[in-house]
Amino acid sequence: MERHMNGVISREHQNIVSELMHQEDGSAAVDGSGFLNGSSEDMHAAESFLHQAMDIIIDEAVKKATNVNEKVCEWRSPEQLKELLDIELKDGGESESKILQRCKDAIRYSVKTSHPRFFNQLFAGIEPYSMVASFITEAVKTSLYTYEVAPVFTLMEDAVLRKMIEMIGWEEGGDGLFNPGGSMSNMYAVNLARYRFCPDLKEVGLYSAPRLVLLTSQESHYSISKAAALLGFGTKNVYLVPSDDRGKMIPSALEEKIQLAKSEGAVPFFVNATAGTTVFGAFDPIDKIASICEKHNLWLHVDACWGGAALISKKHKHLLKGIQRVNSVAWNPHKMLMASLQCSAFLVRDKSSLLQRCHSARASYLFQQDKFYDVSYDTGDKSVQCSRKPDAFKFWLMWKALGTKELEQRVDRALNMAKYLEQEIKKREGFKLIMEPEFANVCFWYIPPSLRNLPDGPELRKKLHTVAPVVKERMMKTGSMMIGYQTHGDKPNFFRMVVISPQVSRQDLDFVLDEIHNLGKDL
Amino acid sequence: MERHMNGVISREHQNIVSELMHQEDGSAAVDGSGFLNGSSEDMHAAESFLHQAMDIIIDEAVKKATNVNEKVCEWRSPEQLKELLDIELKDGGESESKILQRCKDAIRYSVKTSHPRFFNQLFAGIEPYSMVASFITEAVKTSLYTYEVAPVFTLMEDAVLRKMIEMIGWEEGGDGLFNPGGSMSNMYAVNLARYRFCPDLKEVGLYSAPRLVLLTSQESHYSISKAAALLGFGTKNVYLVPSDDRGKMIPSALEEKIQLAKSEGAVPFFVNATAGTTVFGAFDPIDKIASICEKHNLWLHVDACWGGAALISKKHKHLLKGIQRVNSVAWNPHKMLMASLQCSAFLVRDKSSLLQRCHSARASYLFQQDKFYDVSYDTGDKSVQCSRKPDAFKFWLMWKALGTKELEQRVDRALNMAKYLEQEIKKREGFKLIMEPEFANVCFWYIPPSLRNLPDGPELRKKLHTVAPVVKERMMKTGSMMIGYQTHGDKPNFFRMVVISPQVSRQDLDFVLDEIHNLGKDL
Repeated sequence: MERHMNGVISREHQNIVSELMHQEDGSAAVDGSGFLNGSSEDMHAAESFLHQAMDIIIDEAVKKATNVNEKVCEWRSPEQLKELLDIELKDGGESESKILQRCKDAIRYSVKTSHPRFFNQLFAGIEPYSMVASFITEAVKTSLYTYEVAPVFTLMEDAVLRKMIEMIGWEEGGDGLFNPGGSMSNMYAVNLARYRFCPDLKEVGLYSAPRLVLLTSQESHYSISKAAALLGFGTKNVYLVPSDDRGKMIPSALEEKIQLAKSEGAVPFFVNATAGTTVFGAFDPIDKIASICEKHNLWLHVDACWGGAALISKKHKHLLKGIQRVNSVAWNPHKMLMASLQCSAFLVRDKSSLLQRCHSARASYLFQQDKFYDVSYDTGDKSVQCSRKPDAFKFWLMWKALGTKELEQRVDRALNMAKYLEQEIKKREGFKLIMEPEFANVCFWYIPPSLRNLPDGPELRKKLHTVAPVVKERMMKTGSMMIGYQTHGDKPNFFRMVVISPQVSRQDLDFVLDEIHNLGKDL
Repeated sequence: MERHMNGVISREHQNIVSELMHQEDGSAAVDGSGFLNGSSEDMHAAESFLHQAMDIIIDEAVKKATNVNEKVCEWRSPEQLKELLDIELKDGGESESKILQRCKDAIRYSVKTSHPRFFNQLFAGIEPYSMVASFITEAVKTSLYTYEVAPVFTLMEDAVLRKMIEMIGWEEGGDGLFNPGGSMSNMYAVNLARYRFCPDLKEVGLYSAPRLVLLTSQESHYSISKAAALLGFGTKNVYLVPSDDRGKMIPSALEEKIQLAKSEGAVPFFVNATAGTTVFGAFDPIDKIASICEKHNLWLHVDACWGGAALISKKHKHLLKGIQRVNSVAWNPHKMLMASLQCSAFLVRDKSSLLQRCHSARASYLFQQDKFYDVSYDTGDKSVQCSRKPDAFKFWLMWKALGTKELEQRVDRALNMAKYLEQEIKKREGFKLIMEPEFANVCFWYIPPSLRNLPDGPELRKKLHTVAPVVKERMMKTGSMMIGYQTHGDKPNFFRMVVISPQVSRQDLDFVLDEIHNLGKDL
């Protein structure tokens, strides 16, 4: 029964085919190539294949990937891996058993982001409910443009957005949609701000517009700059506002930059505040920034892709104090809240269909106005995409399963865990915090014994700069854990640990610090 | 064992917790809330849940959804469906059995796009290999920015792109990436064309640029217009080139529009040709358009999202004659080739890293240049997204399984099937083709008996216009099939059937025509 799904006409259909081939009109074969009777796919065979594949996925990508005694990654160089994966595509197909082996290999050589010792990105861990929801969205295979083809997911998206809007504190409600990632959500904010500033620009372009200026902190995510480039504003019209030594935007510096832009004859129109910066996890002071934006009538967006999760915690939501005053928010449940990738919400306080008006193109083949149901449920024209994934379901199902309270406990637990790590780092010789963490990013240097007695200065910095990359290489080659590193300003390379997953224990954090020392003590 | 995954500390860890709670330093509990020892997730329970959920997915979203004797959709109004799904999110969580029931319900009330009688969009059907690949990408949960966190998928994306580039016929190679949908891919083309025209615009914006004009046919997809709005060009600077009565761009009309723009002092810089228009499936004459673009030094992009599949067929690739001459191509394997949603490639002939230079932001926390491997494998800075899904794997795995030859047979089969439908429509009374189909879109009117003797004129058109919406409502309420309809120019509402899936048989097509008559004969 090998290869029975590969378009070979299944046995039960072969009889039908030969029967029809003998019909007098011969219409079974149009132009002689390809028989059109019966399905050319055998769904029974497909089911058996799916069951086998699912066993592999559960064994390799769930059980093994989350097992602390297994490796986080099995490092191979690109050249080695191309060989191992037999990467080239060919004319002929392969047997089912071969394909199942390929599934195993794809998982085996992938990084185990669900492993308790993966701390490399702003996402980690496995959320089984969300994972199942993501499988369902793949299996159901639909797109969110119309209620007609995505009734369930359209309503679920709406329910999730309303709940998130409630948590932001927009008492009058709002609008929004889920996007493929936070960069897109931030880009939507910039476009909406432009549309509010002058709706005609959608039609006439920026040619005759005044020079429009975007303001964001030096610590903000690069997506603001990418949006400025893509949307035609130009990166030089992004004015970077200085942050304090904890990574938070300085409100008086924002005021100064606004004045500067105005004095140049430019027109500031958009301010991005960050709730949870990428490197330090810092929160800009939203309340103070909101007052400045209100005074100057600027659109205030909050990039809360990373830090938005704190809104769900009574204990930590103060970090976003004032967020109810802003115009729009980007918030990725796929980060701290562990929804499957991708799950990124863009939320806007406007209720006058700004989102729809800004992006609509009114395609007649999708958004017919003579449909038999209320077409306000068709969300497609709010998006710059055409086909759009039902990502909200990944969050809806886990939220139903866990309830808001459990989500809250998870956030509190992760931030407690980061606190524990901070305390451990303070205790240990050779480890030095960059700063006291405000959120779940813990940034620190590891100083090998050979450097511990060097005085602070160019020599120490130069040597320290080379430590993290080597430790990183070694941890990946042993596969014991994964942590990110980077420079920042004039700071030499340091580690950034991001603590998220409920699978992580304090034992894992102890391990990480021990392991860094083991891998780097000879440097 | 209900709710054992919900963050409740599992039994095996409770002992450890109480043991550690009695440690002298008390460090197990940082600030008293939340115990940090051991994982708070029980992965054994998760596995059992996953197995049960997968059985539901296979039964409901594969077996039942593809069974021709089941309904294509179970129509409910938004109000009914909100009730049925108990859509609101709450403080408390729910039991595992409740969540499994929710999975069933979500599938039950979703439209079965895999059903052999779903012809409503430019995608349809199930491709089991691609579905498994999509499950793996969800389970492995990673993002394509760096080789470090996505080694396998980075290489697979590269392999798929190279093969697609080979089929386009760019003998020197090219570059590209997978995007969340064809609209994004078309948008990338516009941005690259701008960057090539003047790289400085990335930095300084469009303010001092000449008025830049995009040209595309009146039949092209709305994403070109959306891109013009988003990227700051303005929709009025999209010049619509007339198409002939088969929906194909008229080359001499393109030349005229270019001259018009120039005579106005504007600067044409970008031409989009469509290979497979959304409504009629028409192919613009690429070869002739390429000659015009070469003469005027304009970037030529081909939106082959829908029609690109013909490149894989020796018999049909003539439809895209000349495509090797163009600058960029968008091609969605999730359409005719049935890869799981989304799977959309953007391909560019340039090999001088235009894609990277146009979009890069060089974030220091992701794209460290002192990594221990060849960082040219980090693709993240080619994208305007940050986190990006490994969509190429969905195509890679099915391509490995089927081989190029089987993919070719599928395309040939689908187009044969469309041919069969065309012939049937010609034979049947009360059915009238809008035009001879060039691809897999078959557009036609159904004329109920009461209208068959009316002379052509405003009365007939007005009455005919109301037929398709009512038939559509009835087919959805009986759940027997799904087909799209729309107006076009001054044409009253007509049906657009899109024939794709290998699951579809000529019996299904006969059924569709019979059923339209049954549902509409009283109108």
